[in-house]
Amino acid sequence: MIRAIAFDADDTLWHTETLFQETQTRLAEILGHYAPPEEVQRRLHATEERNVKAFGYGVKGFTLSMVEAAIEISAGRISAADIHTIVGMGRDMLEAPMRLLDDVPQTLADLRPHYPLYLVTKGDLLDQRNKIDTSGLADHFAGIEVVARKDPATYRDVFARCGVDPTAVLMVGNSIPSDVLPVLEVGGWAVHIPYVVTASFERHDQDPAHARYARLGSIRELPAHVDRIVGGAQTEVLPALAKTGGRK
Amino acid sequence: MIRAIAFDADDTLWHTETLFQETQTRLAEILGHYAPPEEVQRRLHATEERNVKAFGYGVKGFTLSMVEAAIEISAGRISAADIHTIVGMGRDMLEAPMRLLDDVPQTLADLRPHYPLYLVTKGDLLDQRNKIDTSGLADHFAGIEVVARKDPATYRDVFARCGVDPTAVLMVGNSIPSDVLPVLEVGGWAVHIPYVVTASFERHDQDPAHARYARLGSIRELPAHVDRIVGGAQTEVLPALAKTGGRK
Repeated sequence: MIRAIAFDADDTLWHTETLFQETQTRLAEILGHYAPPEEVQRRLHATEERNVKAFGYGVKGFTLSMVEAAIEISAGRISAADIHTIVGMGRDMLEAPMRLLDDVPQTLADLRPHYPLYLVTKGDLLDQRNKIDTSGLADHFAGIEVVARKDPATYRDVFARCGVDPTAVLMVGNSIPSDVLPVLEVGGWAVHIPYVVTASFERHDQDPAHARYARLGSIRELPAHVDRIVGGAQTEVLPALAKTGGRK
Repeated sequence: MIRAIAFDADDTLWHTETLFQETQTRLAEILGHYAPPEEVQRRLHATEERNVKAFGYGVKGFTLSMVEAAIEISAGRISAADIHTIVGMGRDMLEAPMRLLDDVPQTLADLRPHYPLYLVTKGDLLDQRNKIDTSGLADHFAGIEVVARKDPATYRDVFARCGVDPTAVLMVGNSIPSDVLPVLEVGGWAVHIPYVVTASFERHDQDPAHARYARLGSIRELPAHVDRIVGGAQTEVLPALAKTGGRK
């Protein structure tokens, strides 16, 4: 029933969103003369949404959106020195030390003898490659796929490249729209492990009510969950997830 | 002897570097108050080199480097409005219409019945995916790989994923350091088709003197060249390529 397990990376295997949050807090401080923090967050978020089609989901596009938003929020009064600082904040994010989530290496080591594991992550290619290299986790994976978007067509394509039937894949991630819904749509199984904060564009109001879906509190619950599915136990559908605060 | 043909994309299948050149010319105009065009080019190039490890080779990293260089060249005197324009120039590059090089669709159509064709390109993932989608060429390829860097390890990995023996692959591209040398190193064949201008970091002073290497003037010479290799004719090693002007 489950023949392969695929993992999201950002905020599933290693911390990412906290870095975005800290950077946004610094941006709000820099723009404190021009607007209150809530307005900075709101307008940065609107700029990101406007730019996502051209810039994608990674740190570089986020940094370009911060520069644009800073100029717009300050009505062009922000100094070149402050913009220089903002670009440097983007580079700092790319060069930040890797911080794995708790229990990740042990869980991958536990599952690896029983299932081929795959990594399916979106964002900037070079940034993701650097993170995979420094994570020390690469050897656990039978395949690593960095994708531009996570939609049903992409998952179909990725699972075909990995040579696995979509209906026999369990995808594990922190995002309902990116890691759960498109995988259920192509016939696969999905596990949602919420991260402490959720980026605005990864939020979803309701847990999907679906027999092939479950929400877990931590990655360390995953091996037992897989055993339950394979053992034929009914998967538990948890109640709707309360909206979590986060990048907005 | 040749069982698969792989192609670079930027400046091999479609125009890219001319867009970088035009954007740099506009940047030099914006910074005309602060420095002559040659100094703008030189300092932009130095900024790009400094940033390539964090930002990679795509348009977004180039745009962030333009912003940094503009602030540094103007000693912080550049206006926020001008920086806004520079970020917009980056977005314009990402949204620029696709311009295929001459004879590309016909050559791919000619080769495709005889060899599986692969696309191996570096740069921003989303930008490359968008270009592949709008090029109308995707159907010609048995596999498409967007990579963070083009070194021997990457080519070994890519050719393994495609299921082709590196010694039976012919790689076609406009860059000696990216498309030719690492492929020769893993035992493959390489064809260099110079583009009208060459990005500074893709330049190489000398043609490799190698039996599995050749330089062609245009992609339309490729089918006959492949026939010559397969027919056992000696591949022709052309004299050293004069340095071409370009992104600097």
